[in-house]
Amino acid sequence: MQEITIVKVGGKVVETPESLNELLNDFVTLPGLKVLVHGGGRSATKVAAQLGVETKMVDGRRITDLETLKVVTMVYAGLVNKNIVASLQARNANSVGLTGADLNLIKAVKRPVKEIDYGYVGDVESVQVNELMDLINKGVIPVVAPLTHDGKGNMLNTNADTMASALASALAKHYKVNLVYCFEKKGVLSNPDDDESVIKELSHKLFKEHQETGVITEGMIPKLDNGFNALNAGVIKVSITNTQGLKGGLDKGTLLKKD
Amino acid sequence: MQEITIVKVGGKVVETPESLNELLNDFVTLPGLKVLVHGGGRSATKVAAQLGVETKMVDGRRITDLETLKVVTMVYAGLVNKNIVASLQARNANSVGLTGADLNLIKAVKRPVKEIDYGYVGDVESVQVNELMDLINKGVIPVVAPLTHDGKGNMLNTNADTMASALASALAKHYKVNLVYCFEKKGVLSNPDDDESVIKELSHKLFKEHQETGVITEGMIPKLDNGFNALNAGVIKVSITNTQGLKGGLDKGTLLKKD
Repeated sequence: MQEITIVKVGGKVVETPESLNELLNDFVTLPGLKVLVHGGGRSATKVAAQLGVETKMVDGRRITDLETLKVVTMVYAGLVNKNIVASLQARNANSVGLTGADLNLIKAVKRPVKEIDYGYVGDVESVQVNELMDLINKGVIPVVAPLTHDGKGNMLNTNADTMASALASALAKHYKVNLVYCFEKKGVLSNPDDDESVIKELSHKLFKEHQETGVITEGMIPKLDNGFNALNAGVIKVSITNTQGLKGGLDKGTLLKKD
Repeated sequence: MQEITIVKVGGKVVETPESLNELLNDFVTLPGLKVLVHGGGRSATKVAAQLGVETKMVDGRRITDLETLKVVTMVYAGLVNKNIVASLQARNANSVGLTGADLNLIKAVKRPVKEIDYGYVGDVESVQVNELMDLINKGVIPVVAPLTHDGKGNMLNTNADTMASALASALAKHYKVNLVYCFEKKGVLSNPDDDESVIKELSHKLFKEHQETGVITEGMIPKLDNGFNALNAGVIKVSITNTQGLKGGLDKGTLLKKD
């Protein structure tokens, strides 16, 4: 099986020209086949404000009413995605920008309303990679925006970490998949106040312990859940690092381990 | 050679849910392989206004400064394109939304400044359909937004009629291509005041005569230039009609003829 590396980068990295350029310079040097999954939340919030659309977040998740769905579709699939694709083409890295609707890649269901109505937010239902693999095998780099579709004509706002995990899991049947979550820290920290206290290897057991004692909190928890899901689905290597971790090998940051 | 039909639709048709639904119902019934090229100018103007970005048009062309480029990238590649793709997926028509940057499909040069500085507007330089054909041959419908890239990392705003013509011309080396320009009238009219005065067959000679006598004017002229360019590049059939012309065969409206 061929090796493929899926890199998920948060919005901040891809939303300023300098950090995007640095990221892509490192990204294109990664050996073998590649996929980039990106966010874009900061630009979405900014454009929403300019359009007079109020941004409401609950536990770090965007409440997506119809107007907000239009904004995130414009910003994620349009502005951010095409900027990355054009920037990769400028590096002679042939790429294609996709959402979950394109090639019927990721279908989702609108999140059922329980205590909170998240609106047009999608929970991943199925991943279909037939046409995607044909492109990947030709060396094309898919650049994936955090949007899915419901099969009924609606786009849905979907968490980029979850999409990266779902894609990695589906591709794990066909490739040796490395999944790298890039965020602002060097890795998962054992001491939140010490940026150098990177946990080199994190088993699921240790994750749960750190979660109980409050060492690992908030946004890191769903990210790690997504990471362990991918590991359990057959992804070879899941790591969490910052974009510096893409330089020279994928053994930086925190490596997730099965128990 | 396999037959393929490229339909170009203006913004108005794809920008309201009712007309988009009707269009796609007819479009998916067209036999054989298909490509859809769309506009989105009305939405772009609307979003620009909401964002406080002034819209400047010269001879029907949008002056595209950096802020306007962001707007058209958001609206064409994001809002309009993904809405069409999701709507096609809802009809079990597998599709993929693309700009000229994706798959390095259409490269353009920023229009040189002469009397008018059009800004980030691209004149088509080259079309590369290798990966596109692989998708088409699997029955995937490309949905193409009117944007290109310059190979240096910039998106460029590009006329949708021109993109349809350039794509049709490139694909004519590999397929029997039909190119259909859908606009608001039934066809090219011999009497602008009589919507029923459709010219059934239009040779290049007759086009030039009608242009000189003022029967054919304004926006129709570049559209017909694009159509004749495609015909000269080997496209089998070029027709100009309204979306009703997509119902039951492609022999409605005005058919372009070589002299």
